Amino acid sequence: MSFEFEIIATDGDARAGILHTPHGDIPTPYYAPVGTLATVKGVPPRDLHEMGASLVLANTYHLNLRPGEDLVKQMGGLHHFMQWDKPILTDSGGFQVFSLAEINQIDDDGVTFNSHIDGASIRLTPERSMQIQEDLGADIIMCFDQCPPPNQRETVEQAVARTHRWALRCKEAHPDDSKQALFGIVQGGIYPDLREKSARFLQDKIGFKGYAIGGLAVGETKREMYHALDFTMPFMPTAAPRYLMGVGDPDDLCESILRGVDLFDCVMPTRVARHGSALTPDGRVNMRNIQYREDPHPIMEGSNCYTENFSRAYLRHLVVTKELLGHYLLSIHNINFVIQHVKNMREAIIEGRLKQYTEAFLARYVKKDSSLS
Amino acid sequence: MSFEFEIIATDGDARAGILHTPHGDIPTPYYAPVGTLATVKGVPPRDLHEMGASLVLANTYHLNLRPGEDLVKQMGGLHHFMQWDKPILTDSGGFQVFSLAEINQIDDDGVTFNSHIDGASIRLTPERSMQIQEDLGADIIMCFDQCPPPNQRETVEQAVARTHRWALRCKEAHPDDSKQALFGIVQGGIYPDLREKSARFLQDKIGFKGYAIGGLAVGETKREMYHALDFTMPFMPTAAPRYLMGVGDPDDLCESILRGVDLFDCVMPTRVARHGSALTPDGRVNMRNIQYREDPHPIMEGSNCYTENFSRAYLRHLVVTKELLGHYLLSIHNINFVIQHVKNMREAIIEGRLKQYTEAFLARYVKKDSSLS
Repeated sequence: MSFEFEIIATDGDARAGILHTPHGDIPTPYYAPVGTLATVKGVPPRDLHEMGASLVLANTYHLNLRPGEDLVKQMGGLHHFMQWDKPILTDSGGFQVFSLAEINQIDDDGVTFNSHIDGASIRLTPERSMQIQEDLGADIIMCFDQCPPPNQRETVEQAVARTHRWALRCKEAHPDDSKQALFGIVQGGIYPDLREKSARFLQDKIGFKGYAIGGLAVGETKREMYHALDFTMPFMPTAAPRYLMGVGDPDDLCESILRGVDLFDCVMPTRVARHGSALTPDGRVNMRNIQYREDPHPIMEGSNCYTENFSRAYLRHLVVTKELLGHYLLSIHNINFVIQHVKNMREAIIEGRLKQYTEAFLARYVKKDSSLS
Repeated sequence: MSFEFEIIATDGDARAGILHTPHGDIPTPYYAPVGTLATVKGVPPRDLHEMGASLVLANTYHLNLRPGEDLVKQMGGLHHFMQWDKPILTDSGGFQVFSLAEINQIDDDGVTFNSHIDGASIRLTPERSMQIQEDLGADIIMCFDQCPPPNQRETVEQAVARTHRWALRCKEAHPDDSKQALFGIVQGGIYPDLREKSARFLQDKIGFKGYAIGGLAVGETKREMYHALDFTMPFMPTAAPRYLMGVGDPDDLCESILRGVDLFDCVMPTRVARHGSALTPDGRVNMRNIQYREDPHPIMEGSNCYTENFSRAYLRHLVVTKELLGHYLLSIHNINFVIQHVKNMREAIIEGRLKQYTEAFLARYVKKDSSLS
């Protein structure tokens, strides 16, 4: 059955499961690479297949601006347009509107903003977001939400209330989950009572196929984010997938999966790749460093991705000379690293040794990585 | 035997052959993609394999500056460094010195110039070029030559004489062709007597495993280049491969192969790809054009490369949004297009119908392509 979520094992609060979709199964926990404009930057779909990727994410806001959801629909939908036949998730546009665009007006009906591309005035409402996401045709679609700064109580309170009213309208505009499953988004910033209220409302008053935690990873410290998960997760559903939006740092994945999160997405692996950085068991490393100049070893032995064929010396050369192949090789290495890391955690959950795995991973990764706070 | 050149068929002046090298056979005629800095820009080696590429070219001048031939040698040579186990050809650096660098001094011993990267003063001589190319370790290496403007008789005459003296020194510095075959370069600009003199000198006074025609495709019209081939080719060897440097436009390949050229290299296919252009049987097309906005067809039916899976509408979207995947997909399409085009000509030579093939190709390609003169 489409969008059935099976939990096949638990280990503490962590769960291993399978989310069934019309375009195939997603083994959870799972990290989704981000294909903002209907392409995971620099990575051909067949390479994603090779790495065992299932779900990829695409951005409603960006695709609405370019090339427009009408064109994507005309071309047979996102799957056909970008030649990705496995599951796709689209976000609602809410996060980008509140972070990228110049907002002219926000009211209970929706948001009017200027495109960050050409300044054109655009109106997004819950109904419009549903329409765009239906035209794009992803397997999983998200409610249009308001994403405020997480630590201004009054603003967060208003945003939670508005997000709930908008969630009702999204559900009304998209009542049939058989082809595209609608997920709700829990808001509430850093306030336990608001998170509880939001999680309960979405489950008890509406009911969705899955639930996201929104408004985290927006600038707070890692400690604050883990704390927010600590008091939010008890109110998240047990039978449905739980999706932590915008999170993908390897250490954050450990902490979140330990707390019971099932789904993630993040641009970090491809973004840092384009800046010349590689993810390794010893933390994030800048391949520009002179120490790699004569290093004949791959970034990581046993990574089992194509990049393993190339030496750090060669990768450093590509990064220093700004060669496109450097973006490509680091992007697939980084995506593969995160996918494998989450896959390792899934296996550890099934075998009841997640705590050992994450402790060993974090001891090595966080200790060595100076970029972590 | 290494670097044996077999001619397996002729059709008029055109020849189909096989050049044997320590890293495998090169079927000729053959177009070599250019990997300036030890990477064909944006194209992973395994994609080149998939397209049936054999020889690729790398640039001595660029690799001497970055990362330095010492490092490449230390990393096991170019083949291992860039993970390309098929044949490689390096040029001598001569062309880049005379076109890219700021020259401080040119004398009979060599050239002193400033690096285009950091202005450092660098000295290149025939012996130094041989040393660098031996350290890089390509299968085919080129004589260090002087490449002057082709239509100033006195300068060309002096450059021919100097190129010959340098060719003697290159041969002396690299007497053993068993692992790396040294090719000579015929200069002489637009002057038939100088081209004849140069071709005869290199063959009769020295003797190389192969011979290049240098100093063409440097700004003259296509008609002038074909004319120069007309009066130069009769003096080129019949038993050795003939290499026209820097040429790769599909129409130029027709005209040159008809006149008996065996080898080519050119950055055009990847360079125009990065500017959003695709090579098609109807000429070069700019994928940015609005006419492709809603076009569900691939760039070219039956191209048999990965890009065939994607619609023109999607490629236009990638080009317009400056997505890296657009560079990748257009680069492999364009390289594949040129490799297939030359392969088609090779088959036509073997079957004795090259004239029909080129006439049909040119009638469609040149007529429709407004970029051609």
